[in-house]
Parts: sequence; C-alpha cells; structure tokens
Amino acid sequence: MRTDPAHLIDASAALLGRLREHPPLVQCITNSVVTNVTANALLAIGAAPAMVDIREEAGLFAGIAGGLLVNLGTPAEEQRDAARESVAAASVAGTPWVLDPVAIGALPVRTALAHELVAARPTAIRGNASEIIALAGAGAGGRGVDAADSTDAAADAATSLALAHASVVAVSGPVDLITDGRRTARIANGDALLTRITGGGCALGAVTAAFLGASRDASAGGAAGDLGERTAGALLADPFVATVAATVVYTIAAELAAERSTGPGSFAVAFLDALALVTPAEVIARAKVTVTDAAASAPGSETASDAAPNAEPATARA
Amino acid sequence: MRTDPAHLIDASAALLGRLREHPPLVQCITNSVVTNVTANALLAIGAAPAMVDIREEAGLFAGIAGGLLVNLGTPAEEQRDAARESVAAASVAGTPWVLDPVAIGALPVRTALAHELVAARPTAIRGNASEIIALAGAGAGGRGVDAADSTDAAADAATSLALAHASVVAVSGPVDLITDGRRTARIANGDALLTRITGGGCALGAVTAAFLGASRDASAGGAAGDLGERTAGALLADPFVATVAATVVYTIAAELAAERSTGPGSFAVAFLDALALVTPAEVIARAKVTVTDAAASAPGSETASDAAPNAEPATARA
Amino acid sequence: MRTDPAHLIDASAALLGRLREHPPLVQCITNSVVTNVTANALLAIGAAPAMVDIREEAGLFAGIAGGLLVNLGTPAEEQRDAARESVAAASVAGTPWVLDPVAIGALPVRTALAHELVAARPTAIRGNASEIIALAGAGAGGRGVDAADSTDAAADAATSLALAHASVVAVSGPVDLITDGRRTARIANGDALLTRITGGGCALGAVTAAFLGASRDASAGGAAGDLGERTAGALLADPFVATVAATVVYTIAAELAAERSTGPGSFAVAFLDALALVTPAEVIARAKVTVTDAAASAPGSETASDAAPNAEPATARA
Repeated sequence: MRTDPAHLIDASAALLGRLREHPPLVQCITNSVVTNVTANALLAIGAAPAMVDIREEAGLFAGIAGGLLVNLGTPAEEQRDAARESVAAASVAGTPWVLDPVAIGALPVRTALAHELVAARPTAIRGNASEIIALAGAGAGGRGVDAADSTDAAADAATSLALAHASVVAVSGPVDLITDGRRTARIANGDALLTRITGGGCALGAVTAAFLGASRDASAGGAAGDLGERTAGALLADPFVATVAATVVYTIAAELAAERSTGPGSFAVAFLDALALVTPAEVIARAKVTVTDAAASAPGSETASDAAPNAEPATARA
Repeated sequence: MRTDPAHLIDASAALLGRLREHPPLVQCITNSVVTNVTANALLAIGAAPAMVDIREEAGLFAGIAGGLLVNLGTPAEEQRDAARESVAAASVAGTPWVLDPVAIGALPVRTALAHELVAARPTAIRGNASEIIALAGAGAGGRGVDAADSTDAAADAATSLALAHASVVAVSGPVDLITDGRRTARIANGDALLTRITGGGCALGAVTAAFLGASRDASAGGAAGDLGERTAGALLADPFVATVAATVVYTIAAELAAERSTGPGSFAVAFLDALALVTPAEVIARAKVTVTDAAASAPGSETASDAAPNAEPATARA
Repeated sequence: MRTDPAHLIDASAALLGRLREHPPLVQCITNSVVTNVTANALLAIGAAPAMVDIREEAGLFAGIAGGLLVNLGTPAEEQRDAARESVAAASVAGTPWVLDPVAIGALPVRTALAHELVAARPTAIRGNASEIIALAGAGAGGRGVDAADSTDAAADAATSLALAHASVVAVSGPVDLITDGRRTARIANGDALLTRITGGGCALGAVTAAFLGASRDASAGGAAGDLGERTAGALLADPFVATVAATVVYTIAAELAAERSTGPGSFAVAFLDALALVTPAEVIARAKVTVTDAAASAPGSETASDAAPNAEPATARA
C-alpha cells in the first residue's frame, strides 16, 4: 500500500474524526505516576479510558476493549499478572495492544517482563530510543525514563524489533520515528515541554491504543479526505497508519498547547484542552511527516532506501 | 420531615458553611486514577482528605474519620482487604460511609465485593445509572465507567436499593437523581465537562462523604437560613439532605468552572478553584432542585407520586 | 562552618543553578495521592524523577540514583519492602535520602516502619510538626496529614531527632524550621495555598532529595555568588544547606504562584510554572531566612542560644 506523507496526514485527520464519532474503549495497565494524566488525555482526545489492572478482571476486559495499553513504569506484582492476563486475552480476541517498555535495560523485573510480553507480538511498541534499543537487545537502556540515545540511533533497533514481532515500533524524541520494518515515518511536530511533564510519553502510548482501536473499526470504510472509499478503508485499518496518526495528532496538540503556556504547569493544562479541541483541519495544516520505504531492503537497512522504488524520502509540510 | 426544594437548597448552603468551619476528616479508599483529584477536591471544598487504604490501618482510621469513601475503581487485593476492614469499623463507630461501585456488572472481582459491602448498609451509594442498576441486580452494568443507561431508567433500581439497605442512593447523570426510597430529588445543575475529566463522578463520592461528615456534626444545631433552629438541626443531620447538598454544591461548582474553561484541562483547574470559592449565596441562587415524595407508595413506584400528599413534583429554580 | 542567612541564601541560589545544569536522578517511593504532582514538581525544578518502587528493582536503583525519597503516605506491602531495599542500598552507595513519615503516630504500620527506617540515618527527615514530634517519640502524631502542633512546638523534637540520627530535620509549617541539631534555620517564605493542594508537603520531600543530589555533586566547587571557591564547595556540599535551599526555593516558588492564582486549582498549575521559572536572582531577592546556632548547647536547648557565640538569631530579608 502506498503510504506517502499526504496519505498519512489525510488518514491522521480522518482517524481523529472517526475516533471522536465512535469513542474506543481503551484499557490501560499503566504506571502509578501517569494514570490520571493518561485517563485525562484519552477523555480529552475523545476516547473512553478504563484502568482495569487487577487479576481476574484484566484479561476479561481485554477481550471486550477496543484497545489495550501495557506500560511497565511501576510494574508491581499484581499488575504484572494483570498484564499477562490482558495480553493473552487481547491476542485471542484480536484487540490491538501497545507495549510501552518504560525504563527497561538495567532494571531486572520490568526488563524480563518486557521480553516476555513482546514475544506475544504487540500491535505497536512505543518507547524512547534507549528503551527500544534495550528491547531489541542492542543496548543497556537509559537511566529512568530519560533517553540516553537519539531517535535515529534507534532506527536499526526499531526496524529489527518491528520485523521480529510483526509490530509497529514508535520511537519518541524531538523527531518521532515510526516503522513497521518496511516503511519508516518521521514526524517533526511536538514541543520540548512534553518532556517537562509526566506522562508526555506514557499518555502517547494510550492515545496510540485509542487510534488503533479506531483503526480496527475503520475497515468498513469512511471518509478520508481525497482518498477513494476502498483505499481509505485499507489505509485507516493499517496499524502503521494508526500509529503515525496518534503521534501526529498528539504532537500537534502539544504545539498548540505550547503556544499558550508559560511553563510546564500551564502546558499540561493547555495540552488537555488542545487534545480536545484540535481539529482534523489543523492536523492537515500542521503535520510535518517524512516517509522512507525500504520494502526491498533487508532488515536493519533503512538507510538503503535508494534501492527501493518508493524509497525516496518524501516530505509533506504544511 | 418536609424536604421541599427550598429546604434542601437552604440546607445545602448551610452544610457548605458548616463543612468549611469544621473540616471533616474524610478517609478515601479509592482508585488509582483519581486519588489525586479526589484529595484535591476535598481540600478545595474545605475538608481534610486521608487516603488510608492499607491493611491493619484502614479499619483503625475508619473509626476516627468523619466520613469514609469506598470506591471500587481499581480494587487490588490489598485495597479490597482495606475496604472490608474500614466498612466493618465504620459500622461499629457510626462513621457515615459512601460506596461507589465503579464499573460493576461484568467485572467479577469488584461486582462480588460491591454486593458484599452493600450488605453492610452504606450511608450512601453513588454511581452512574448502569452501576446502580447492576448493584440492584437489575442489569448487567455498563462498559467501564460509562453509563449505558439513563438516570431515570435507574430510578426503580435506586429506590429498591435504598429501601433494601436503608441507604441514600445517588445516580449521577445530566440530571442527578437522589433517593432514600421515599423522597427523590432531581438536581439539574452541572456541566457536561464533568464527564470529560477523570474523577468527575468519583470525587463526588468523596465530597458526599465530606457532607455526610459535616451532617453528622450538625445535629447540635446551627444556622440554616430561614429555618428554625430545631428544624434546621434535624434537616442538616439527615443523610438524604447531606447527599443532596453534596451534589448541589458540586454541580454548581462545575457550572461556575465551565463558564471559565476552554476545554477539559482548564475546566479541571477552574473546577478546583470553584469548589474552594463557591459561596452559600451562589448555591442558593443557582440550585435547580425538584423533589418527589413517594411516602405512601410501594417500593419502585416513584412514578405513582400522585398518591402521596407531598408527592407532587416541586421545583425551585433560582 | 559559618552558615549565616546571607550564606544560606547565596547557596540556595547556587544549588538551584547547579541542579538545573546537572539534573539529579531522584528515586521516589511515595504515596499514591502525590506520585504525579511529585514527579511534575521534580521535572519542573529541573530534576529527573524515577518512581521505582517495586521489589527487586528499588534497591538496585537506589544505588545509582542521585537522591532518594521514602514517603510513607500509603505504604502498601510491596512498597514497604521496596523502601527497605532502597534505604539499605542508599546507605551502602552513599546516596542521600529523605524520610517523610506521613501521618505517623496512631497508624501502626507506617509508624513501625518509620522507626525502623530512621535507624538507618536518613540524610534528611521532612514532616509537619506532629509527625516530627511522633517520630521523636514525644507525641501521638496528628490526624492524617494535618499538623496538630505548631512548628516551634516541634523544635525540641527536631533537634533531638537530628542529633540521634545525624540527620537534618525539616519541619514544614507557616514558618519552616530546619535543623541539624546544632544550627537551626527558620524560613518565612511560602503561602497558605500550599496546604490547600495535595503534595504541598510531600513534593517538598522529593525536591529536598533533588537538592541533596545536587549538593553531593557540588563538593568539587562551582560558583556561589560572593563566596570563595573553597568555602562555596564545602557550603554547597553540606546537607543542612541543601535542605534549607530546597525549602527556600520551593516556598518562594509558592509565593510567586500565589500571586497568579485565584484558588487551589490555578495555584497548583502556577506552582509548577514557578518551580520551572524561578531564578537564582529571585531566590536571593525574596528569601526570608533566620539562623540560630546552638553549637555549644545541649540537645534540645535551642532556646539557650544566647550561650553560644554565633547563636544570636540573625535575619536576612530582602
């Protein structure tokens, strides 16, 4: 499927509209620092959050949820069991799910759990560069939630992770990088204030699960700007496209919020407002997306994009 | 006792003043999403929050608290034990307590716990329509925290729950419905933005516990607008009145906040400000309360209000 | 070392600058109400928060963290084990750590744990007057997080705690009192709105751990206003100075925020902004610090300050 920047941007706007018309129910198993901001971000964007993270309920809920986030930020014992239950049930039910391997690398409990869960093939994996490198087995991870590595340094790790687990991998950073192992999008939206509030990355994992939920519902068709009906349906149902859409909308909301903020406190407030108020038209007007297609290339060779027909970096900037 | 709208509104204003003069200590056993906003809402309105929710402390604390909230949103194992301890101790000590059966219905752990706890006769039960219907055994519950049923659809379930457990039952919705099985109040204040932030319903449970705490202290008398001293004391000490008061004050604060908000982020901030700043005079000026008295009617027959002397719906709107 | 008010104020400004240049990694084992605001306060001031509070990871992390906070607000079983692990590891690694004995006194689990942990000699202990009195074994504690006692009533308890465990003890209140058993500083900055939001005290514990982390890195020297290089290095590396600095900067940020707030909701937002924006120059311009030196006095005799050469209360007000 062609996924040039213009298509990705149109699809981002279309999925935002769809998500708001049919709010997906998003189950979050997430860390104690960001539960509140994560739920608020989901409510703001238009989704329905449900933090069902206890044993004997988490799995059951994952079977009926529209999307699932498993974030390993504070994986206490009961939550680890809930994560295992939910991932198993999501796999059976076909619920799209996102793994966020927070701060893995040196910390043994979450690192082992991340490797266990990733084997169940998350629909998407979201992390910073250090986390993605650590999950791919290519590095030692960062210190806490800080990325010690740049987004581009994680490109090879992201590609090999994506191919190994048939997942979309999203690497957060000043420029976000999203790949399914073949296609790689870079998104240059966002604002540094996102790194000065808690949940700036973690809530994006939940919003990604929401867009994946909206995407799953989208295969039946629906308006997607200038795209034809059939193309639009296939495009909107593509997890790579949905993951790109989540990041595009989220980082554009951050830009809108930063214009109205004087510091991290007011930014956090304005960001929730912006998630609720950002329009599909603003998404189209502000998105900064570049795509590389390495279809014909070997895993990890995303720099060899010249070899593939559609592999010329293409940029759409408003 | 006569509880026409004017009396309920005067009592709401009076209890707000009393709560601020003598801040009740409110123990909250609540879910991980809303602990922070719940504590902040209590502090803002003028109460003293205490989130004591661990084994071997929760029960002890319930014995000295002015009010207790048990919210089942994320009932991990240790918290379930703490809830049981606290409810037992509250019953012995006479501490008023509120049960919020979040998302019960399909989820087995919390549903079983809700049925276990409700048998201990909560002073008040707060939920959305689907939760109240599920707790009354009359339906399957909603999906997550969303109500799939309307407030009025839950009126029969609320009445039968109230009569079965000698509880006041509060059903949150666009129009809030509160009943003790005989008297039913409907409160038309509030704003839809309350459903776009986390804790919009859950924090009301805690604020209800705070008003019940203030109410318990109120039987000794105190000013209640135009009411006589003795009438005022009995009125303010009535859990039905206190539950109505909590909802009236809370939803009016939401209206004041909505007037100052551009989205859910700024609403959440303005709402805490409004809880702190709302005056008894504003409560009296803005309250929209209707009362039905079904004293002579059978359980579940709140629509047969014509049969009872005071059963004509009476409305006071400012 | 002389630590008159002017030196403390210069050092507060210098440590703030140093913290922002070299963000310390601060591990927080804290209560469920304030995890989010604590992490946000650390991010705002310029530090890097990490809420690693599970078994088999907490200890490991304490060995590499720049500072550690152990707050006993909601000490569930797994968190208690994590606290023990972390304190043991911090002691071995020399990681500075802060104990916040929230609401100890009548509640048995946290009270026993506080007494166990304090024996491991926290670098600093932060609490309200009732908590400090209870930890010193001199009283029964407060009700919940409210202090039933005044800051000055806790002065003797603070001094004896400090001397018994070689800790700096910080008592929060309208005037904050900080002592290492010999020197006592009183800080008259702050705003009552800090008591109307959750985390007003708890987040200060985390910020204190951040300043202790910055202080540990500071012994190699660095600019400290008009102080000489060597003096500056020793001054900045002094845990008493770092604890004073944390309170000075934090309470000045509260003042700046209060000037921009209409209630507790907007204050909480403005406070995070102020923590991010407050400058060393503002710290110097606004700090209200008094110092008493009881070097020659016996424990608990801080009122006998006339007996010591440098013991005259000295005040620097901008």
